[in-house]
Amino acid sequence: MVEWEERLDIEAAGLDHSPLVRSYELEVARPTLRDNTGLADRLARAVQKEAGLAEVDYPLALASNLNELYLQADYHVWAACLVEGDKGKVVALEPGPGPGGTFGLAVDLGSTTLVLALVDLDKPRLVDQLTLSNPQVRHGDDILTRVHFADRPGGLESLVTCLREAVNQGASEICARHNLKPECLAAAAMAGNTTMTHFILGLPPRTIIREPYVPVINRPQGLRATDLGLNLAPEAPVLVMPNKGSYFGGDLMAGLVVAGLGRAGKPCLMVDVGTNAEVVLGHKDWLIGAAGAAGPALEGGVARMGMVASPGAIDQVRIDRQTKTLTYRTVDGLPPKGICGSGLIDLFAELFLSGLIDFQGKLTLSPGDPRRVETDEGSAFLVAPASETESGKAITLSEVEIDILTRSKAGMYTILGTVLKSVGLTFDQIDRFYVAGTFGQYIDPRMAVAVGMLPDIPLERFVPLGNSSLKGAVLALVSGKARAEVLDIWQRLTYLEMNVNQELMNRFSAARFIPHTHRDLFPSVGTIIT
Amino acid sequence: MVEWEERLDIEAAGLDHSPLVRSYELEVARPTLRDNTGLADRLARAVQKEAGLAEVDYPLALASNLNELYLQADYHVWAACLVEGDKGKVVALEPGPGPGGTFGLAVDLGSTTLVLALVDLDKPRLVDQLTLSNPQVRHGDDILTRVHFADRPGGLESLVTCLREAVNQGASEICARHNLKPECLAAAAMAGNTTMTHFILGLPPRTIIREPYVPVINRPQGLRATDLGLNLAPEAPVLVMPNKGSYFGGDLMAGLVVAGLGRAGKPCLMVDVGTNAEVVLGHKDWLIGAAGAAGPALEGGVARMGMVASPGAIDQVRIDRQTKTLTYRTVDGLPPKGICGSGLIDLFAELFLSGLIDFQGKLTLSPGDPRRVETDEGSAFLVAPASETESGKAITLSEVEIDILTRSKAGMYTILGTVLKSVGLTFDQIDRFYVAGTFGQYIDPRMAVAVGMLPDIPLERFVPLGNSSLKGAVLALVSGKARAEVLDIWQRLTYLEMNVNQELMNRFSAARFIPHTHRDLFPSVGTIIT
Repeated sequence: MVEWEERLDIEAAGLDHSPLVRSYELEVARPTLRDNTGLADRLARAVQKEAGLAEVDYPLALASNLNELYLQADYHVWAACLVEGDKGKVVALEPGPGPGGTFGLAVDLGSTTLVLALVDLDKPRLVDQLTLSNPQVRHGDDILTRVHFADRPGGLESLVTCLREAVNQGASEICARHNLKPECLAAAAMAGNTTMTHFILGLPPRTIIREPYVPVINRPQGLRATDLGLNLAPEAPVLVMPNKGSYFGGDLMAGLVVAGLGRAGKPCLMVDVGTNAEVVLGHKDWLIGAAGAAGPALEGGVARMGMVASPGAIDQVRIDRQTKTLTYRTVDGLPPKGICGSGLIDLFAELFLSGLIDFQGKLTLSPGDPRRVETDEGSAFLVAPASETESGKAITLSEVEIDILTRSKAGMYTILGTVLKSVGLTFDQIDRFYVAGTFGQYIDPRMAVAVGMLPDIPLERFVPLGNSSLKGAVLALVSGKARAEVLDIWQRLTYLEMNVNQELMNRFSAARFIPHTHRDLFPSVGTIIT
Repeated sequence: MVEWEERLDIEAAGLDHSPLVRSYELEVARPTLRDNTGLADRLARAVQKEAGLAEVDYPLALASNLNELYLQADYHVWAACLVEGDKGKVVALEPGPGPGGTFGLAVDLGSTTLVLALVDLDKPRLVDQLTLSNPQVRHGDDILTRVHFADRPGGLESLVTCLREAVNQGASEICARHNLKPECLAAAAMAGNTTMTHFILGLPPRTIIREPYVPVINRPQGLRATDLGLNLAPEAPVLVMPNKGSYFGGDLMAGLVVAGLGRAGKPCLMVDVGTNAEVVLGHKDWLIGAAGAAGPALEGGVARMGMVASPGAIDQVRIDRQTKTLTYRTVDGLPPKGICGSGLIDLFAELFLSGLIDFQGKLTLSPGDPRRVETDEGSAFLVAPASETESGKAITLSEVEIDILTRSKAGMYTILGTVLKSVGLTFDQIDRFYVAGTFGQYIDPRMAVAVGMLPDIPLERFVPLGNSSLKGAVLALVSGKARAEVLDIWQRLTYLEMNVNQELMNRFSAARFIPHTHRDLFPSVGTIIT
C-alpha cells in the first residue's frame, strides 16, 4: 500500500516513479540558413535530447501556431512529453517557463460523486482534491435508470455531455486554486465502473445490462483529451482503466493496484461494495474474482432512510448495552437526514449486540415500547424521533429493511466463502483483507464482523483502501509499474461464475442468521456482546 | 525502377509487397455468458488471430455503433488493419463482405494539377487514375502568390479547404467508377512540394519562403484521414512524404524511392525540375543533394508564351536544317496557344542546331527576314504566325527569353557540375540519370543535351521517371521497404549549400554559351548539327 502523504511514497510500496508524461523547459535552437530543420522537428529534437529518448514524435495539432509561439516566447518553451519505452510524443506546449512542473488529473468516475485530484507527476505529490456531484443524477439516481435513459433519442448525448462538462468544470476549479491553466494539464487517468467508463468514452452502455452483459470496449487505448472532449492539453494522454466485463470495472482494477494484490506474497482478499459486491482473491501468481448482488443495502441504497455519507447522514450509532440508549453521530453534526452505509452497519450490529434484535433480525422490543413503532412497512425501530430530524419525520429501520440487510450481508459472506472454497483456502489463511470504496473507508470492521458480513479474522488484517478508484488513477499517472500492473491484473484476473446450485443456496441460508447459523465461525462476536 | 504495368512488379525492383494496411473478412464470435469480451475487443482479437499479430488496437471512434453493425451484418464483417511490425490497429470496418479487397488512395499534390490513383494494395495494382486542376489556382497561379494569400485573414483556410475538397471530390469520382464507397479507402499516401504539403496539412507556409526558409514540419507522423478532413475511412492512415527543408519536398523523396537511388550500386543522378531545380546524386551508401533557381524557364513558366502541357500547347518543334522550315506539334493537335516546357527546350535546341541562333543565343536572321519580328521586348523569333494560333496573336520567342532560357540551362548545368565535383565524380561515371516530373516525361534528352542543359552522356542512361511523386506515393502504400526507404533517404540525404563564390560564378559563366564554352564537353552536339 502507498502512503498517501504529501509526497506519494510509491517506492516503498514496490512501485516506481516513472510518470506517464514528463515536462521540460527548453531553449529551442533558432532556425538559421545552416539549420533549417522544421519548427516542429526542432522542438522534437530538443525534447529528444533533453529526455534522452531514441525518437520523439510531434502531433500535427500542436504545429499550426508554432512560429507565433516561438516568437512570443523567444524560443524558450515548456513542453510535456508522453514517454513509452524509448519513444516519446510531445503532448503539450506552452511559452516558457510554463506551469513550473508536470501536472495531471486523476478522476474517480463515481455514479454519485466525481472526485478529481490534481497530481504533481514530478514529485510525485497529490496537490489537491475536489469532489463534485455527478450531474447525471438528474437523468437517474441509479446507474440502471441512466442506461435506459441513454437509449432514448439524445439520451446518451445528454449523459455524456453533462459528465464531461462536470469533469471540465472540476478541472478548471482545481486548477484555478493553484494558478494553473487547465490546458497545462498534460495527462489524465480515470477509473470508474464499466458503465461510467462507457459514459466518459461516449459509448452506448445498453449491451452492458442486457444478456450476455457485454461492454462495448474492455480496454480503451491511445486516448487523448480531445477525443473525450476534455479541456486539458488537447493532446494529453488519457488513461481509462480497463474493465473485465460488466461487473469488474476499471474502479476494481484501480483498487487492486492500490491494494497491491498483484504483488502480494500471500493470499489477500479485496472487496468493493458498490451497486454490486465484487470480491477478488489472490496474490502475485493468481487472481480470482467474483461478483454478486450484495451491495445496495450495505451502501445505504436500499433502506428507506438510506443516503450517501453527506452532511446530516447518521454515520455512527452506539447502543448502551445496559440502558439500551441509542446515540448517533451525523456528518458535520447536523440534524439527521438519513443513514449512510457505515451508520446502517453500525445500527444493524448494535441492535444485535445489545439484544434489541434477535439472530433472525426480529425486534425483541415488546409492543408499546417507545422504540418500537409501526410503519406502513410493519414494525420498525425508532432511530431518531421526528423532533430531532431535519425533515421533522422520524428516522426508522423496519424489520423488512433489517431482512434486506441480512440478505445482503449473507450474500457478501456467501461470495467470500465461495471464492475461498474454489481455491481451497480458509479465512484464517488470508493475509490482508482490503475493503475498497467509501464503504471500506467509513465502516467499522468490528461491526461488519459482528453481523456476520465480514469473516471473523484478526481486526488488524482489515485494511480500508479509501477511494481506491481515485488512488489507482493517481498511481497510473506517476508509475510505469502501476500502469503495467493494471494490464497485468486485467489479463490475469479470472472470473468465477457464481452458479446458483444447492451448495451455494445452503451456504447463503446458513449466512442469513446473525452473525451466522454456525456461531463457532464468529468466536469474537460473543466477546463483544458481553 | 518498378514496371508500372497492370500489376506492380515491385519485387523485381528490389522492393517487397507489404502493404500499409491489410483487410480481412471475418466472422466475429458472438458474445455469450461464457465469453463476455467487449464488442470492440472481440473484433481486435479476431483480427489479431487472422493477421497473426501480437497485438491489435481498436480506436474509440470505431466503437460507438459496433453493436448495430454486428446485428446488421450478422457478425460477418470486413476490417482493415494498419500493420506496424507485429502490432496492428483496426482502421476501417464495414459489414461483410466489404469492398472485396484493400484499397488506398495515392495523391500527387501538384501546385497546378492533382493526380489521384486508386490502388489495390492486395495485388498490388494501380486500378485507376484521375487528374484534377488544383483549385488553389484561383488564389494564385504560382505557389508564391498562394503563400502570400495564406497570410491574409481567412486565406490559409480557403486554400486548405479547397485543396482538401478537391481531393475528396476526386476520391469520390474515382471510387464511383469502381463501385467503391470512399469510406472503404483504408489508407492514403501523398507527395508534394513542401508548400503543397503544408497546405494539405493545414499548416501556414509563411516561414518556408522567408529567410531562413524553415518549414513548420519536416516529417508528419501518425496522421489519419480525419485529421486532414479527408472523406476516406476516418481512421485510415495517411502518409505524407517528409520534406527536407523548403527545396527538398516530399515529391523529391517520392522520386528518389521510385528511381531507387537509395538502393543503387553505382552513382546515379536524379533531377526534378519544378519551380526550382533539385538535383540528387548518390547510391546506397551516400546521397547528396542541391537545389537552385533553374526551373521556371525550363518548365515554360517564364517565357511569355509558356504554358503547361495542356491541349493547344506546342510540345514538339523541328526545324529543317536546310530549308530552316519550322514544324510544330500541339497537344491534341489543336491550334497553338503557347509553348510548354518540352516544346521550349525543343525550340531552343532546334534554333541552335539549325544555326538560327548563335552560341550566345542571338538571332542570326537578318532584319527583314519574316521569321524575325520586333516585339516590345526587342527582336524575337516567330514560332507560329497569328493566322495559325488560337488567340489570333503570333507566338514568338524573344532574344530576352532566349537569354532567360540560357541562364536557366546554365544554372542547371552548374548545379549538376558542382554536385559532381563535390564528390570528385565526372559525368561519365554516372550510371543512370533520372529525370523526374512532367519535365522528364516529355522532354527529349537529345535536345536538352544539345543546348547544354544536361550533360553529354550516352542517351540510354537518361531515364524519365514520369509522375514520380504519384508513383512514390503508390509504392509507400504497397511496400514496407519503400516506406522504410523514404525515411532512410530522408535521414541520409545531405544538402550541399551552393555558395555563390568565384568558382561557381566561373562555372556558371562558362555554361552560359550554347552548349558550353568548352565544346569538348559536348562532343555529340556537333554530330547532331551536321
